[in-house]
Amino acid sequence: MEPDTPLPAGAGKIAPDTVNAWFERNRERILADWFRLLRFPSVSADPARRGDCRACADWLRGHLEALGLGSELLETSGNPVVYGATRPGDGPRILFYGHYDVQPADSPETWRSPPFEPELRHGRVYARGAQDNKGQLLYFLQALACLRDLGAATPNLRILLDGEEECSSPGLTAGLNGWRRRLGADVLMVCDTCADARTGRPALIAGLRGILHFEAILRGARHDLHSGMHGGLAPNPIHAMSRMLASLHDRHGRIRVPGFLDNLRPANEREQALLNKFPLDAAEYRRRTGAPPLGGERRRPPAERLGFRPTIEVNGIAGGYSGEGIKTIVPSECRAKLSARLCPDQDPERCLAAVKRRLARRRPPGTTLAFENEAIGGPGFRLTTGSPIFRAAGEVLRRVDPRGAVIRWEGASIPVVSALRDISGAAPLLTGFGSDEDRIHGPNESFALEAFRKGLLYSVLMLNTLGGGE
Amino acid sequence: MEPDTPLPAGAGKIAPDTVNAWFERNRERILADWFRLLRFPSVSADPARRGDCRACADWLRGHLEALGLGSELLETSGNPVVYGATRPGDGPRILFYGHYDVQPADSPETWRSPPFEPELRHGRVYARGAQDNKGQLLYFLQALACLRDLGAATPNLRILLDGEEECSSPGLTAGLNGWRRRLGADVLMVCDTCADARTGRPALIAGLRGILHFEAILRGARHDLHSGMHGGLAPNPIHAMSRMLASLHDRHGRIRVPGFLDNLRPANEREQALLNKFPLDAAEYRRRTGAPPLGGERRRPPAERLGFRPTIEVNGIAGGYSGEGIKTIVPSECRAKLSARLCPDQDPERCLAAVKRRLARRRPPGTTLAFENEAIGGPGFRLTTGSPIFRAAGEVLRRVDPRGAVIRWEGASIPVVSALRDISGAAPLLTGFGSDEDRIHGPNESFALEAFRKGLLYSVLMLNTLGGGE
Repeated sequence: MEPDTPLPAGAGKIAPDTVNAWFERNRERILADWFRLLRFPSVSADPARRGDCRACADWLRGHLEALGLGSELLETSGNPVVYGATRPGDGPRILFYGHYDVQPADSPETWRSPPFEPELRHGRVYARGAQDNKGQLLYFLQALACLRDLGAATPNLRILLDGEEECSSPGLTAGLNGWRRRLGADVLMVCDTCADARTGRPALIAGLRGILHFEAILRGARHDLHSGMHGGLAPNPIHAMSRMLASLHDRHGRIRVPGFLDNLRPANEREQALLNKFPLDAAEYRRRTGAPPLGGERRRPPAERLGFRPTIEVNGIAGGYSGEGIKTIVPSECRAKLSARLCPDQDPERCLAAVKRRLARRRPPGTTLAFENEAIGGPGFRLTTGSPIFRAAGEVLRRVDPRGAVIRWEGASIPVVSALRDISGAAPLLTGFGSDEDRIHGPNESFALEAFRKGLLYSVLMLNTLGGGE
Repeated sequence: MEPDTPLPAGAGKIAPDTVNAWFERNRERILADWFRLLRFPSVSADPARRGDCRACADWLRGHLEALGLGSELLETSGNPVVYGATRPGDGPRILFYGHYDVQPADSPETWRSPPFEPELRHGRVYARGAQDNKGQLLYFLQALACLRDLGAATPNLRILLDGEEECSSPGLTAGLNGWRRRLGADVLMVCDTCADARTGRPALIAGLRGILHFEAILRGARHDLHSGMHGGLAPNPIHAMSRMLASLHDRHGRIRVPGFLDNLRPANEREQALLNKFPLDAAEYRRRTGAPPLGGERRRPPAERLGFRPTIEVNGIAGGYSGEGIKTIVPSECRAKLSARLCPDQDPERCLAAVKRRLARRRPPGTTLAFENEAIGGPGFRLTTGSPIFRAAGEVLRRVDPRGAVIRWEGASIPVVSALRDISGAAPLLTGFGSDEDRIHGPNESFALEAFRKGLLYSVLMLNTLGGGE
């Protein structure tokens, strides 16, 4: 699955200081581009933002052309994919994947500055998407400008910028087969992950979890009823949903869904050794998030939980009255949004069926259950940590940070990575410079200029390493 | 507790047909008054509606004066109480209690016509409060106009119109002691209940449940977190709240809160016989509400559950993301609004403490729990079904409907009735002409003109019976 990609001889001549100096010279222009990109409210979950997503894609297409790439929009059933390519040349074929869509920004009152009006404060850019993924894809694109300005060889590169990653990439996934001819590659570069949370060292991602999600809707009476005249008679869908959701885990946080944990592959010896080498610091986690790491399977080490154990998470619940004051009703409906993170060898289809079956079996009499918005993002995967490309990236990252990179199994999902790996034949290479402080998916998302600089430096050096001799 | 009120000799001469003819003559004017009253958005739960509540009270004060009563607004910490009184005369002293505040009307898109723009369709008036309680208090007030127009004796009457009943009447309850002198009465009339759901026969209420409510807020991390990077680490307050709420009942719907059921008084022999006489028809309940009567303690007969068993009900829950599409977060917070309906001899303070203690004991580690908006509406009570006033009302109701009245223990609460009974020394007399079809507390609340007519007829005949000889 991960070919031994030979690295071209004589590559990687550019010095880090040269890149840093280029960044300082181009800082204002880069910030202007970044802000422009962040002003598009490209929320893929919101059908009302379809036009904004397309406008963002159009701008990126122009940006790629300005960088000297051929570029076009690949149409899908949803938001278009921005495609770009350098002229085919020597050296390993690189496929870069990023996404220009962002999470919803809900609750504007919780943002210090509006989510789509970027602001630079104390060395950080604040906006929805500042990091995830607009900030990280932009440093990669800026690396192409830097290579050009420094007269380095143009890498053999194809770029795919997804407009629906936050919704599990339905359009891109459906389109992949049709675009197969142009997607063949040796290395699949993705910059949508984080540096090591505890030390700030760069991180090479050795695995990602898969994801699935769906919505459960439980209904009782036709409409809300008076809780005095009907309390004790009418079925209460919130009670029922609580029972059903509570049945997904035991009191120690272990998943209790028959069939869900089938085929789960435990960490091998080498992986276990790396897990022990980079444990999660509970006190530091609490400082960082405000809560101790006591979610999920409390009795397992946190680092193992994140990388080698699946989750079933309720992302949202709503039922009955939640406005000001009280309203004494037996509600007619309760809705819950659920997602699961999956580990390698878990079958997403079977896992989805298992969770739905568990909920359905715990449904109390008198209520009806429906499922909506079901989607499978893809399975989880793990990489072989000793491959040539992994080693080469490790050497580049030691030039970005002398402490070198940590190797980590990421709890997050980039649903399309498995699919892209299969269609392109490429070895995934996932590195990113995010941090928890960035608060992606939450209010006041931001990205540090210093992290952007490191991302740029890594991208330039890595592309220079892969790009053939000058 | 319920004095043997002697009924005046020679009372009750007015014939039903005379009242019905008066109603037909005055129908347009009554509808105009009713619509005017419904246009005030007097939502007591919403602090922004304080001004609307006062405007509604002012209008009612004027209305009472136009009916020939002395009237004033009794100020409270919240919305004012409208007070009215006839000139003291012979005959039993009657205290009438109603409320002019209404439930929130949330989700305007679920209303066919706007909640505060009343509309008459197919013999029903549609608006928030059309029945509860503006419609029912208005037929009582119109009975005074009818008695006057027919030249009948003016009853010995005091009127209290509450502006905070839907919020457990904090202002009125606090004010009662100060108004004690003017509230002494023999009969406490309340028209805030329903006719028999199955047969449509009038209903005499032999008991009401008490009520308490509060809000539980469970918090995990400081802010929502990415469910990939934190799933399995961060505590999920929705999971935790589900476990906590599920612990309040067992799988058969029985309350499982230590201490909560202490002192519960079972039905006596006479009550049990009446319960058996008027059972609840499950098939009819399902037709009426869209759900079978399988909420609460499923193994007990429905009529017993409603009248003789308490409930703990979750009225609303909200946590995480509930907008369009998906948002893969571990939410930072989950809020649940709860209320309980209490039976006689249950101590509301102890019950509130018991539910809170149960929730707190089931709180999973890593989360913090807070309680807000705690309020106790009052205890439940039951009346002696053989008292003179109960018998007299039964005779009047046989003139309204030849089938006569059913005797029922109402599951609802009128929190202030116990307090008013204690302060006035009066025997409660609770009759109302609502039906489930009215959908009080829900969207598209309405009240049938025919039910209004019956309420008017009952009020005229009852006041005429109690009002002394002509």
